[in-house]
Amino acid sequence: MSRTASMSAPVLPIRGRLRPLGLGDVRITGGFWAERQSVNAVASLAHIEYWLEREGWIRNFDLAAGGDADIAQARRGREFSDSEIYKLLEAMAWEIGRTGDEGIESRFRSIVERVAAAQEPDGYLNTKFGRPGQEPRWSDLEWGHELYCVGHLLQAAVARARTRPGADDGLVEVARRAANNVCETFGPDGIDGLCGHAGIETALVEFARVTEDDRYLAQAALFVDRRGHGRLSDVEFGREYFQDERPVRHATVLRGHAVRANYLAAGAADVAVELKDASLLDAVRTQWQNAVARRTYVTGGQGSRHQDEAFGEDWVLPPDRAYSETCAGIGSVMVAWRLLLADGDPRYADLIERTLFNVVSTSPSADGRSFFYTNTLHRRELGTLPDADKPSLRAAASLRAPWFEVSCCPTNVARTLASLTAYVATSDDEGLQLHQYMPGTVTHRRADGRDLRVSVVTGYPYDGEIRVRIHKDETESDSDDPWSLSLRVPGWATEGATLTVAGETRPVEPGVVTERRTWQRGDEVVLCLPMAPRFTYPHARIDAVRGCVAVERGPLVYALESVDVPGIETVDELRVDTSQAPRLVDGQVTVRCEHVRADENAEQARGWPYWTGPNGSAPVADEVLDEVPLVEYHAWANRGPSTMRVWLPTTA
Amino acid sequence: MSRTASMSAPVLPIRGRLRPLGLGDVRITGGFWAERQSVNAVASLAHIEYWLEREGWIRNFDLAAGGDADIAQARRGREFSDSEIYKLLEAMAWEIGRTGDEGIESRFRSIVERVAAAQEPDGYLNTKFGRPGQEPRWSDLEWGHELYCVGHLLQAAVARARTRPGADDGLVEVARRAANNVCETFGPDGIDGLCGHAGIETALVEFARVTEDDRYLAQAALFVDRRGHGRLSDVEFGREYFQDERPVRHATVLRGHAVRANYLAAGAADVAVELKDASLLDAVRTQWQNAVARRTYVTGGQGSRHQDEAFGEDWVLPPDRAYSETCAGIGSVMVAWRLLLADGDPRYADLIERTLFNVVSTSPSADGRSFFYTNTLHRRELGTLPDADKPSLRAAASLRAPWFEVSCCPTNVARTLASLTAYVATSDDEGLQLHQYMPGTVTHRRADGRDLRVSVVTGYPYDGEIRVRIHKDETESDSDDPWSLSLRVPGWATEGATLTVAGETRPVEPGVVTERRTWQRGDEVVLCLPMAPRFTYPHARIDAVRGCVAVERGPLVYALESVDVPGIETVDELRVDTSQAPRLVDGQVTVRCEHVRADENAEQARGWPYWTGPNGSAPVADEVLDEVPLVEYHAWANRGPSTMRVWLPTTA
Repeated sequence: MSRTASMSAPVLPIRGRLRPLGLGDVRITGGFWAERQSVNAVASLAHIEYWLEREGWIRNFDLAAGGDADIAQARRGREFSDSEIYKLLEAMAWEIGRTGDEGIESRFRSIVERVAAAQEPDGYLNTKFGRPGQEPRWSDLEWGHELYCVGHLLQAAVARARTRPGADDGLVEVARRAANNVCETFGPDGIDGLCGHAGIETALVEFARVTEDDRYLAQAALFVDRRGHGRLSDVEFGREYFQDERPVRHATVLRGHAVRANYLAAGAADVAVELKDASLLDAVRTQWQNAVARRTYVTGGQGSRHQDEAFGEDWVLPPDRAYSETCAGIGSVMVAWRLLLADGDPRYADLIERTLFNVVSTSPSADGRSFFYTNTLHRRELGTLPDADKPSLRAAASLRAPWFEVSCCPTNVARTLASLTAYVATSDDEGLQLHQYMPGTVTHRRADGRDLRVSVVTGYPYDGEIRVRIHKDETESDSDDPWSLSLRVPGWATEGATLTVAGETRPVEPGVVTERRTWQRGDEVVLCLPMAPRFTYPHARIDAVRGCVAVERGPLVYALESVDVPGIETVDELRVDTSQAPRLVDGQVTVRCEHVRADENAEQARGWPYWTGPNGSAPVADEVLDEVPLVEYHAWANRGPSTMRVWLPTTA
Repeated sequence: MSRTASMSAPVLPIRGRLRPLGLGDVRITGGFWAERQSVNAVASLAHIEYWLEREGWIRNFDLAAGGDADIAQARRGREFSDSEIYKLLEAMAWEIGRTGDEGIESRFRSIVERVAAAQEPDGYLNTKFGRPGQEPRWSDLEWGHELYCVGHLLQAAVARARTRPGADDGLVEVARRAANNVCETFGPDGIDGLCGHAGIETALVEFARVTEDDRYLAQAALFVDRRGHGRLSDVEFGREYFQDERPVRHATVLRGHAVRANYLAAGAADVAVELKDASLLDAVRTQWQNAVARRTYVTGGQGSRHQDEAFGEDWVLPPDRAYSETCAGIGSVMVAWRLLLADGDPRYADLIERTLFNVVSTSPSADGRSFFYTNTLHRRELGTLPDADKPSLRAAASLRAPWFEVSCCPTNVARTLASLTAYVATSDDEGLQLHQYMPGTVTHRRADGRDLRVSVVTGYPYDGEIRVRIHKDETESDSDDPWSLSLRVPGWATEGATLTVAGETRPVEPGVVTERRTWQRGDEVVLCLPMAPRFTYPHARIDAVRGCVAVERGPLVYALESVDVPGIETVDELRVDTSQAPRLVDGQVTVRCEHVRADENAEQARGWPYWTGPNGSAPVADEVLDEVPLVEYHAWANRGPSTMRVWLPTTA
C-alpha cells in the first residue's frame, strides 16, 4: 500500500494545496470537542447499536444470510436501513483507530461477521432486494438506495483499512466484492444508470485510494458523468431532487435534496482531484460558493424545505421549520474539507467551523442518546417530549428523539465525531496549518523524517486566546530549518484580532496568517480573537428574516429560548433593542428586549390580521427587560419543551 | 319531499339566522363572475371529462363493472380518483340546473350509467378496493379515501335531486344504496372507524336533508363524534393531519391538512345545526375565528405547508411557497357559508368574497383549461411551462397545468363556479340580504306567495357603485307591506362608504346596512364603496412578511409580476415607496418603487450573506420607478413565466 493508503484519515486525495494529517497526529485533550468525542464513544455508539438491533435492522442481514423464505415480509426498516449498520461500522472503525477500545473492536467484528454472511456469491449485498418475494436488484434506482448502501459499506471498509491495515475481520474484502459487483453491473457495458441518492461516488474514489485500484475511480467518474441527463424518472419533487436535471459540470449551485447535493459535490470533487479535471473541480467550487452565499443558514445549516428535504431557491431561508438536516450539515463539512485540501482557502474552514459548532453539535443531546434530525432556527410552540421508547415517525421532532423511522443522523453524527480530529490541521511542504482550535497537540512527521510538533492551549470557543507552543524532542537541535506555522483568522473576526509572536503583537485580518521561522523549543504564537458578542444582520434579499438580527459570539450562534424568560408565554413576544450591544453578564450573553403582548393589542380583536394603514399593526411594548439571557444554539432544547428563535425582531 | 329538499341550492339547513335562495332565484347577467361561469360551462367541464377519460379514471368503473380479473393491475389513478368523477357529476348537475344544457345532460347520464354499473349488490361502490387482487374494503381508513369518495357521490346526488327532482337517471338511488352500505358498515354496531379525509359528514347531512331520512344524519353525527380520539394510526404528519388528535368540540382552531380541516368543520356545522348542538356549533365558530385571525393569507388562502398540505402554527404564513391549496379555499367558502346561514355575521361573507376573488378565481386560467393547485404569494424563479399534454406530477407547478396526478382542484373549481349564485343572497322573515355584488337579479318567493325582487347594476369589483333597484310585476301594488333590504358593507371599506336611499346619502361602516320600507316600483338603493387602491400592513406576529406591504383595491389583492417591469431581472429587486399611496393610472393600479440590484452591491462579493453591523446589508437604490403597474393577483401567470410577489418590501 502507498503512504497515503495506510494513513488514518477520512479523505486522502492524491494532490492538492494542503495535505491531511492522520487522525493519530492530532490529539484533543479537553474542551468542547473532547467532551463530545467522549460522549460519542461512551454513549452514542452503544445507543445506536441497541436501536439497530431492537429495530431489527442488523437482523435483516441474518435473515438474508439464512435464506429466509419470508424475508420480504420479515425484513424491517426502510430501503436504506443497511446503510445505518455500515455507518455504525465506520464510526466504530474510527473510534477503534482513535482509542484502540477493545470492547468496540469486539462488537465491530461481530457485526461485520453478520454483514459478511449476507453477501451473495457474486458480491451483491443488500437485504432489501433480489431475493424471492423481493423486488429485483436494481429495479428502483430512483428510490431503492442500493448503490448508496454500497457506498456506506465502502466508507466503513476505508475507515477500517486506514485504522487497522491488514486486520483479519474481512470487511475490506466484503467491500471489494461489493464494489466489483457494482463495477461489473454499472460499468461502461453494464446498466446505464445511477443511484437516486449520491454517495457511492466519493466512496468509490476513497476505496480506489485505499486499494490503489483505479477501476473504482473510473466507475465513480462514470457515475458523476451520468448524472444530470434525466436517466432517473421524473418524480413529484422533480429530477432536481436527485441532481439529475443538469450535468454536474454545468450546475452553478447546490440544489435539490440537500444531503444528496452535498454527497454528490464531495464525490465530484474527489473525482476531479484524482483525474486532474479542472473544469469539474471548478464547477464544484462555484456550486459551493453560490450555495454558501445564498442558500445557507447563519448556523451553516443547509436545506430549507420539509417536503423534499431540499435546498430552496436563492434567498429562501425561513427560520421557522428550517429543515437544516443534520446530515446535510455533515455533507457540507465533507465538501468544504475536500475544497480546503484542494485550494487552501480559509473560507472553507470557516464554514466547517460554523457547521460543526452550530449544526453537527446541535443534533445530539448532552448525553448522546437523542438527536435532532432537523435543526430549526425558530420553534413557535412548546411541542412535546418524544416517546423515549419509540422511534420518531417524524424528522421534525419538537425535541431530540432517541431514534427515527429514517434514522440517518445518529450514525452520521457518530462517524463524524469519531473522525473529528481530521479537520483540525493539515500540512504542506512549508509546514503546518491549524484550521480549527481546540486544546491538544498536533504532530506531523515530514517526508524527511523530521517531526513538526505543536500544542494548543485555549478555552476556545469561550475564550479568544489561542496559544500555540512549539515542541521539540530533547534530541532535536534548536537550529533546524525554518518552517511555516499558519493560523486561520475566522471570517467573523473582522475587528480586533491580534497575533503575538516573540513578544510582538500585531493586528490581523480574517484569512490566514503565516509565521515562517526557525522555531525554538517553547516558542509561542498567540492568536487573540475578539470575543465580544455581536449582532448579525441578514442580507436584504433574505425575506424571511427582514427586520431581525441574530446574536453571535465567536463561532457560536445564540438563541432566545423561552425557558430562560420565565413569565413570557412565547419568545415571539420579545423584540430586541439593537441600540444596546449584546453584553456578557456573569459569562452569559444577554440582550435588552421589549416585551410586546401583541395578542392583547386591540387590533387583534378585529379578527383579521391585515390592516389599511401601518398604525394598526404597531405593537405596544409592555415592559423592558434589560438582561435577557441567550443560550448557545447548539445547546437549546436540553431543558425540556421551549419556544426558541435565532432571528430576533428588532424594536426599530 | 319537503320544501327545502326540492330547492336548488347546495346547502339547505333546517334552521339558521338566514335562509339560502335557490340557484334559480339569482341570475348573474354580466361581469367578473358571469364570464367565469360561462368559461366553466363551455370549456372546463369538457376539459375535465376529456382528462378523466384519457387518464382512465372513468374507465376504472367499466373495469369494476365488467368484473375484470386484472383490475388490481389495470386500474389507473390514485386511491381517490373515483371522487373526481363524482365532483364532475356534481358540477354538471348544478350546470344543468342553471342552464338546462341538453348536451351536458346527455354526458351526465352517460357517466352515471357507467358509475352505477360498478356498484356491488350490497351498495359498496369504489373501484380501488375489495375485488380479487385488490386490498380488502375498509382496510386502509387512514389513506384509502373510501368514505371520502362516497361523500362526493352523495354530493353529486344531492345536486341532482335538487336540480332535477325525480329524474330517472338513477344517481340518487345509487347514492342511497352506497349511503345505506356506509350506515350498515360504520353504524353503532359496525366498524368503530372513520375516514382519514373528512367529507362524508357534510355529504351525509345533505343527503339526509334531500331524502328526509335521519339515519344519514345520525351516521354523520357519529363520524364527527368519533374523530379526535386517535382511532386512526399515527402517521409521519401526526394525527393532527386528519384532525384525529383532538375531539372536534374541543379543538379551538383549524389545523392539519387544510382541505380535511375545512371539510370536517363544514360537516360539524351541518350536524350541529340539524341537531341543535349549540356547543358543537360554537366550537366550529371558534375554530373559524382563530384560523381567520392567525392562519389565513391576505388572499383568503389557507394552508402554508407543502409537506402535508397543512395549516402551519399560528402566524406561519410564508408567502414564498405558500401552499394555499385551491381546494382548501373552496372548503373555507363551504365553512363560512354554513356559519353565515347560521349566524348572519357579515364577516363570513367578507371571507367568502375575498376567497372567491383571490383563491377560487386564481386557480383556472382565462380559458378554463389549466389550473393552479397551489396558490403561492411569491414566485422567485421564472419556472417553466408545464407540458400541456401530461398531467403534472407536482401540486406546485410554476404555471397553471392542464391536469394533475392528484387532480382535485379542477373538479372542485367546476362545481363551485356552477353553483356560485348560491352565495349571492339570502332571505329571512324580514326580507332579502345581498352578500356578494354582481350584475343581475335576485327574486325570492316568500312563504306568503309574495315575490321580493331586485336587480343589481354594478361594475364591481372595478367600480364601487352598487345600484339595487326594486322590481315589481304590473299586478303588484306599490303599497304592500314593508320589507327589509340588507346590504353587506365589506370589512375592507373602513372609510368613505356611503348609502343613498331616496336621494339621501349617508356614511356607512363595515357590517350590514338594512333599509326597511314599503318599497315602490323603481326604488333604488345605492351603495358606494371606496375604490382607491390601498396599502395593507400585516400583523406584527407574521414574521414572514415583516417590513412589507400588500396592495389591495376593493376585494382584490394585487401582485407585482415581472412581465410588467421589463428590464428588471426579478421583482425581488424592487422596493415600494409607501410615502406615496398606490395610484390608478389609466385604470391600472400602480406604485412607486426603488430598484435595488442587491446582487451587485459590494457586500455580496464577500460570499456570506450575514454581517456584523447593519450597514453591510443596506441596499443602494439604482433608480426610482414612478408608476410600476400591478396585476390583479387572480390574473397573474396568464402571460407566461414570471416572478411575482404580493408582499412588497418597503423602502423604509
